[in-house]
Amino acid sequence: MQDTQVTGADAPAATPLGVGMVGYAFMGAAHSQGWRTVGRVFDLPLRPAMAAVCGRDPAAVREAADRLGWAATETDWRDLVVRDDVQLVDICSPGDSHAEIAIAALEAGKHVLCEKPLANTVAEAEAMADAARRARARGQIAMVGFNYRRVPAMTLARKLVADGRIGAVRHVRVTYLQDWLVDPEAPLTWRLDRERAGSGALGDLGAHIVDLAQFVVGDAIVGVSAMTETFVPERPALAGAVGGLGGAAGQERGPVTVDDAAVFTARLGSGALASFEATRMAAGRKNALRLEINGERGSLSFDLERLNELYFHDESVHGEEAGFRRILVTEPGHPYLEAWWPPGHALGYEHTFAHQARDLVQAIAAGSDPAPSFDDGLQVQRVLAAVEESAEKNSAYTPVQGVQ
Amino acid sequence: MQDTQVTGADAPAATPLGVGMVGYAFMGAAHSQGWRTVGRVFDLPLRPAMAAVCGRDPAAVREAADRLGWAATETDWRDLVVRDDVQLVDICSPGDSHAEIAIAALEAGKHVLCEKPLANTVAEAEAMADAARRARARGQIAMVGFNYRRVPAMTLARKLVADGRIGAVRHVRVTYLQDWLVDPEAPLTWRLDRERAGSGALGDLGAHIVDLAQFVVGDAIVGVSAMTETFVPERPALAGAVGGLGGAAGQERGPVTVDDAAVFTARLGSGALASFEATRMAAGRKNALRLEINGERGSLSFDLERLNELYFHDESVHGEEAGFRRILVTEPGHPYLEAWWPPGHALGYEHTFAHQARDLVQAIAAGSDPAPSFDDGLQVQRVLAAVEESAEKNSAYTPVQGVQ
Amino acid sequence: MQDTQVTGADAPAATPLGVGMVGYAFMGAAHSQGWRTVGRVFDLPLRPAMAAVCGRDPAAVREAADRLGWAATETDWRDLVVRDDVQLVDICSPGDSHAEIAIAALEAGKHVLCEKPLANTVAEAEAMADAARRARARGQIAMVGFNYRRVPAMTLARKLVADGRIGAVRHVRVTYLQDWLVDPEAPLTWRLDRERAGSGALGDLGAHIVDLAQFVVGDAIVGVSAMTETFVPERPALAGAVGGLGGAAGQERGPVTVDDAAVFTARLGSGALASFEATRMAAGRKNALRLEINGERGSLSFDLERLNELYFHDESVHGEEAGFRRILVTEPGHPYLEAWWPPGHALGYEHTFAHQARDLVQAIAAGSDPAPSFDDGLQVQRVLAAVEESAEKNSAYTPVQGVQ
Amino acid sequence: MQDTQVTGADAPAATPLGVGMVGYAFMGAAHSQGWRTVGRVFDLPLRPAMAAVCGRDPAAVREAADRLGWAATETDWRDLVVRDDVQLVDICSPGDSHAEIAIAALEAGKHVLCEKPLANTVAEAEAMADAARRARARGQIAMVGFNYRRVPAMTLARKLVADGRIGAVRHVRVTYLQDWLVDPEAPLTWRLDRERAGSGALGDLGAHIVDLAQFVVGDAIVGVSAMTETFVPERPALAGAVGGLGGAAGQERGPVTVDDAAVFTARLGSGALASFEATRMAAGRKNALRLEINGERGSLSFDLERLNELYFHDESVHGEEAGFRRILVTEPGHPYLEAWWPPGHALGYEHTFAHQARDLVQAIAAGSDPAPSFDDGLQVQRVLAAVEESAEKNSAYTPVQGVQ
Repeated sequence: MQDTQVTGADAPAATPLGVGMVGYAFMGAAHSQGWRTVGRVFDLPLRPAMAAVCGRDPAAVREAADRLGWAATETDWRDLVVRDDVQLVDICSPGDSHAEIAIAALEAGKHVLCEKPLANTVAEAEAMADAARRARARGQIAMVGFNYRRVPAMTLARKLVADGRIGAVRHVRVTYLQDWLVDPEAPLTWRLDRERAGSGALGDLGAHIVDLAQFVVGDAIVGVSAMTETFVPERPALAGAVGGLGGAAGQERGPVTVDDAAVFTARLGSGALASFEATRMAAGRKNALRLEINGERGSLSFDLERLNELYFHDESVHGEEAGFRRILVTEPGHPYLEAWWPPGHALGYEHTFAHQARDLVQAIAAGSDPAPSFDDGLQVQRVLAAVEESAEKNSAYTPVQGVQ
Repeated sequence: MQDTQVTGADAPAATPLGVGMVGYAFMGAAHSQGWRTVGRVFDLPLRPAMAAVCGRDPAAVREAADRLGWAATETDWRDLVVRDDVQLVDICSPGDSHAEIAIAALEAGKHVLCEKPLANTVAEAEAMADAARRARARGQIAMVGFNYRRVPAMTLARKLVADGRIGAVRHVRVTYLQDWLVDPEAPLTWRLDRERAGSGALGDLGAHIVDLAQFVVGDAIVGVSAMTETFVPERPALAGAVGGLGGAAGQERGPVTVDDAAVFTARLGSGALASFEATRMAAGRKNALRLEINGERGSLSFDLERLNELYFHDESVHGEEAGFRRILVTEPGHPYLEAWWPPGHALGYEHTFAHQARDLVQAIAAGSDPAPSFDDGLQVQRVLAAVEESAEKNSAYTPVQGVQ
Repeated sequence: MQDTQVTGADAPAATPLGVGMVGYAFMGAAHSQGWRTVGRVFDLPLRPAMAAVCGRDPAAVREAADRLGWAATETDWRDLVVRDDVQLVDICSPGDSHAEIAIAALEAGKHVLCEKPLANTVAEAEAMADAARRARARGQIAMVGFNYRRVPAMTLARKLVADGRIGAVRHVRVTYLQDWLVDPEAPLTWRLDRERAGSGALGDLGAHIVDLAQFVVGDAIVGVSAMTETFVPERPALAGAVGGLGGAAGQERGPVTVDDAAVFTARLGSGALASFEATRMAAGRKNALRLEINGERGSLSFDLERLNELYFHDESVHGEEAGFRRILVTEPGHPYLEAWWPPGHALGYEHTFAHQARDLVQAIAAGSDPAPSFDDGLQVQRVLAAVEESAEKNSAYTPVQGVQ
Repeated sequence: MQDTQVTGADAPAATPLGVGMVGYAFMGAAHSQGWRTVGRVFDLPLRPAMAAVCGRDPAAVREAADRLGWAATETDWRDLVVRDDVQLVDICSPGDSHAEIAIAALEAGKHVLCEKPLANTVAEAEAMADAARRARARGQIAMVGFNYRRVPAMTLARKLVADGRIGAVRHVRVTYLQDWLVDPEAPLTWRLDRERAGSGALGDLGAHIVDLAQFVVGDAIVGVSAMTETFVPERPALAGAVGGLGGAAGQERGPVTVDDAAVFTARLGSGALASFEATRMAAGRKNALRLEINGERGSLSFDLERLNELYFHDESVHGEEAGFRRILVTEPGHPYLEAWWPPGHALGYEHTFAHQARDLVQAIAAGSDPAPSFDDGLQVQRVLAAVEESAEKNSAYTPVQGVQ
């Protein structure tokens, strides 16, 4: 006997939550994988439905929708944010578009997930945070996409710090090292254009590590001293490229208007000392987001290139047996891991987007405050602004503007 | 203007390939994730459609279908294998069921993907390989699910060996260490019952490393000398469990009828020496499939707990600069990586199932020989049988029966 | 005011212990460094005095004495072992000379330190152990130079096992991988000649790991199953070399009469399973003596290429915080470390010889039983003999002859 | 026949070089090991003779001389520096004594080796560098003891940079992390007293990493931006201690007048960005001097806790095979290694002192310029002064005073 009952192709949870996504490049693909997967793995209070994706080129967005699994397409985000089948707008477009789209979506009564950095300027971020606070009063959720908080090892690290397992924090050191600009002949892209990208390694990589450090430590940066550098000030322009996207490198050269690298020291509210480095010029380092925190009772260490591992030194262990232990963060008791595979079966980069989706859906269903909120995103933006200000002022210590 | 064209929720490729899966526990969930993802990431010649899933408990299988994304359910695999909308049968049930299901599916004209180990006995595996050979003549594909071949680092390792980058192979050493039986009070499950599981660590973990070593080296094991051990011969029986699944440990104890661990040495066709160890008793080792190969011109080293990394020593590098280099296997030129994320963005365990699905779909579309074939699975089974025979014969060197 | 009191150039302890060393190549140089250093670092009950060194070539041995710090020279070991200023004979010559020298030294009333392996044959080792037992009754000490027991991490490992920190041992896996014979054109040396060296990788590297594994675990190997291999059966003969030493590779080729590699599995008295591999053919591995022990309550792991580190997994640690911890074995509470540098300041290979010298001098002063004794060395020899016997008998499990 | 020719207990080279050492604590013991060993391992043009050691307490210095192997003792350094049998004065006393002793020794016509940091103030360092320059004209050598330059991996790193193997340097990041002040109840020692020690982590650890980074890169720091911190401003005073040395912690507390930690960013002459961190507050880090350099053609990475290893990424390697390779710096072709053990046999911390002694003896014999010279030491002092000045000036970028 054949049981021919056809069940829904989508996830089983009762009430749907329609998602509309803007942008479908790298981040859009990663978010799509998160949305496709989250309801298959986690028990969710709402059922995410991939309602529509938006892009300017009709043919391209249709192809992307088919490939990534979105039910419909839009070519103007203004149409997307007012669709009836969209309750959540997921913004994966470049930073210069974030403010306008997010504010419109919030004003249209939608929940919003906005990729990091929240905006290209503090002013934009402030407007977004204002809109989010007003929307919050109406029950809407606005979250910023600092997905590395959702690496299980990082969530565990935050828990260990919060539980006092390393005591009062003394030192934080974080780097985010990539190498895709090492070659001086690598072409200009929109990411090297201040108008589009806001800043360079600072906004792209620095935003991640500022948020992540503050998240894990549970404390805020209060001031910074910074140096930034553009090692290669001119690069081959992309011939025939529209908006700096695609195309091959041509004969002409154009100016790089963002930083290649930023190094800065910082103080946290507790008085802890921190150092940060973000660069696209570290030959051989592909995704080396490394974080180490030293406290009065212990230390933690992490490298995103080995994202299933957290290193923990517990000062209370007898000296002859003490040492950094490598925690393979794949146990059922670890954050997010109850839903995945048996111990020792590694997760990857993209799982952070499923985790982010889970947390967001839960916050929407519960009406609870999102984390990271747009206020959190604004605070990161203010840290980045202080970094740029300090770099311009001869590295002078520059307080971060208060968000409260 | 709203573009309301609704595209299919499934992948875009033209001709569908209906998949019917038997079993929906750990392996079924992993395969489902592979089927859901493969068409979203890779360009495929056929469009996999998750047609139906089969399990004995009607309510449970329906719940699983909803959760995992299967369109329909069956409660008898005999019904599944004859469904018109199923062209490929994916067998994820325990080893004692493989032969009957696979042969029936092949005789029903279906392609087959069968989880490892191919069977619990050589006799069953021979029957399956016979059926597969007959079906192959009719244009059907039968593949065995040695998914670790699809870890990009392992595919790259095979390529390096095949390209002569390490020269003639001298040594192979492989371990697969887990620790879920370290506690002597861990209860009896079906995996500790010879009737259900065939063998213990040997069939579960040993099958993986035998296949993987042969795959990477491109050579076959011709004889073995082995020791096996059951360190904890009795364990608490699962009270009230049906078929040994679920239930809490009770007062009664029952016998463990499979091995906890197997260690064996081997010779490959080329004369290389190999050593293998499979155990569930290695405290602290969660998924430590480690492989090292030493050749006349170089060496390779790998650990599944860090599955994005392959270590390669190139003997031709000048001595003062020589050393094992850590290749982060996340570059676009690495196997399978063209479809995923930028360099340095880690993949996880489950990606192997999407890769396996890709390779299988491509083989079906092209009508090309599958790898690993049922003959390959049979050969692994014969190696495992030789291991058991050697262990019974005082570790005497025992040739592996020829598959040709 | 000038304090011109000239103190002894040698160490300060009261009673001298005259040392006479046979051989001054690699091992002789290493032992000399141990003897020169031990009294400068450790508080010793006797003052080692480097009385005389012995070698056949008068000019060469005189040069060596000057360079290494020996007060006098001998060209016949028979003269050395009867010198009045020698109380301890330190044998660093090739294995085929050990038995004759050691027995003569013991019969001359001297203490003896003999490099490993104790002898080239079990018969020689038995004669040596007999002589040592007789001498022990006269108050003499005979120790065999398994110096890796004196790597602080290994001494700590033994202590952790003995203290029950990893519980009952289930698995032992040890490799000793080197690569100096990878090149098939590497010339014949005395180490490749069975007459001189006894065996190849087995006696040279295998002896170390057999002793070390038994030492750390505190248990004896009771039987083995083995394969050995000579991958390159002929190599260029050394033109003009006397006794296979020195000289450049010539046109002629000669046979390699020892093993290039040996792999074997073993059972310990407790029932634990062990695997061993010794090879000179592992490209890129320079001194990879790796040891891992899995017990019911924890695990230990070590690599001689990182000899200041011991990895320890403690099964009693809460699962979410568990993991192998890297103990940097440089704390003052660690074995031998009280005499050296502050924490984190690494020791090297040669320190094992100073530690060995310390333990030997203390045993001589206290009249306590030496460890490892010649009986221990004999037992290792019997394990190696069982390995060769098993390899000849088709890998059949071969019990180790009892030493008691 | 007995060859009773008694050779010298000291090294064999013809012309002796009498060494007189001031201080015999940690550094004195380490230098002594270097002097005892250097002539036994390396072929030297002069024969170092350990003529005399100097300390204030007559009994203690005599005990130290006996233990460490010095022929005579002095209780006043003024007597030591004029001894006829002393040609080289080796200064291992605290930093506040360096200037006076070094200048007197130079004026007495002696060669000088002075421990780092060269002095406690820039003014002292300038006077010392002046004296050294004058003495240089008379043929004398003055070297400062930045021993980490003599870690073979660091010498190799400098060579690789100098040979252009990593191209133009973009980034330098260096930390020196220790943890001996993590406990707030750790007592006051002279190292926490500005009068004696000059500064805290900055002068002790920061001096090392400033010199090492400049040495490896072959470039000078031209400006810095800094933060320093004393996390624990009061600690238990040592009851009954004379001069802050020894004694147990008492009831009273005293102020810590030096930094616990210093973090600073820097620019090198080439425009490269650098970051530095020196701390005694990094729980679990014992001697974590870590250095990474990213250049246009490659990168280097090092950790003093694994001092036999250098990691090298070569950008010119084909992308699919690229990766940081772990060079085990124990090959005969590596710096200093020709004199030591076979490949893979690790060196330790103390070997740096033998290497330093070798280089110094060779410079003295050849009359060649020493490296690092007192000018080099002065320049490091100026960097440290700029760090302190920047920390006082709100982290403002502070140029390093020119040494030329």
